[in-house]
Amino acid sequence: MTKVLLFLNKGFETMEFSPFIDVCGWARNDYGVDINVTTAGFTSVVQSTFNVNIMVDKVINEINIDDFDALAIPGGFEEYGFYEEAYSEHFLNLIRKFHAANKLIVTICVGALPVGKSGILKGKNATTYNLKNSYRQTELMKFGVNVLNEPIVFDSNVITSYCPQTAVHVAFKMLGVLINTTTEQIVKHAMGY
Amino acid sequence: MTKVLLFLNKGFETMEFSPFIDVCGWARNDYGVDINVTTAGFTSVVQSTFNVNIMVDKVINEINIDDFDALAIPGGFEEYGFYEEAYSEHFLNLIRKFHAANKLIVTICVGALPVGKSGILKGKNATTYNLKNSYRQTELMKFGVNVLNEPIVFDSNVITSYCPQTAVHVAFKMLGVLINTTTEQIVKHAMGY
Repeated sequence: MTKVLLFLNKGFETMEFSPFIDVCGWARNDYGVDINVTTAGFTSVVQSTFNVNIMVDKVINEINIDDFDALAIPGGFEEYGFYEEAYSEHFLNLIRKFHAANKLIVTICVGALPVGKSGILKGKNATTYNLKNSYRQTELMKFGVNVLNEPIVFDSNVITSYCPQTAVHVAFKMLGVLINTTTEQIVKHAMGY
Repeated sequence: MTKVLLFLNKGFETMEFSPFIDVCGWARNDYGVDINVTTAGFTSVVQSTFNVNIMVDKVINEINIDDFDALAIPGGFEEYGFYEEAYSEHFLNLIRKFHAANKLIVTICVGALPVGKSGILKGKNATTYNLKNSYRQTELMKFGVNVLNEPIVFDSNVITSYCPQTAVHVAFKMLGVLINTTTEQIVKHAMGY
């Protein structure tokens, strides 16, 4: 079975988490693809940006890296506390461990920033939220990242992307990388894309 | 304040709920739009299709129709029990009350089916999930609905739509109808659409 860890830091955006659940879910339910998503957070209930409370499957200390093939990180709003958890050493270490084990790491929007801060993107290509004078891209550059102004960037084992609009396309891409591109296209079509 | 009731029946799809949270949230947080989303369900914790547990703000008996300007209904999978709640008289009555009070009703995918079953779409134009031999559109027709094969249909006070892909576009349209189209365009752009 292919297993994805979907990590929800406080203040994550629901539109940047839901595509991982549904894309993998449609693949499994409608097409028999052996893929599963486990949600995780610092606490057993994680409050999203705009205050939706979601109960996760695992808290951070229960995560065994060996159980997973990929780590997916949605972005979130600073006003809702996203960086309090996303920039913590505890989370940065989790990213470093996934990287050291050569697992796939997938981010949406500012989900790229903790990956940048962890140090694993030094000298690598990546992207993040592009609008509002590219202030988040400027922040990503400070971590020694070669920021590309492209909606989705895939370098080494890391996929990064712009914003809510790119979220579902990143989830499809993840499915393509983890399973195969035929499955990616079939599920994409069934979901109306 | 403009208020949206986002009703999550058991087995709702997360990609069809999240756009309402985020589109209204971005509008409020980044552009000062006075709009709020209240989540509701039959139980205080609602399990989605593919098993994500979400804590909602209100249970069905606590809903006062007068408090809201719109009712939003995501679709869901039959295998995860969607129709057990969505087709119940309790929920159909809620739809009828929103309709009788001339509030906006907005659905994604098979969220249109309980609206059809409630009887308020008789002789009206609407749509629902279009693929897999249009079996859901055939079901909607049985409720006396004039089913159009278009991604988004807006007739009288009801917006219906195809699938996960149309969800965010319906949320933008709802914002345009409830607030104005300038705001709709600004938020759409900020979210990368």
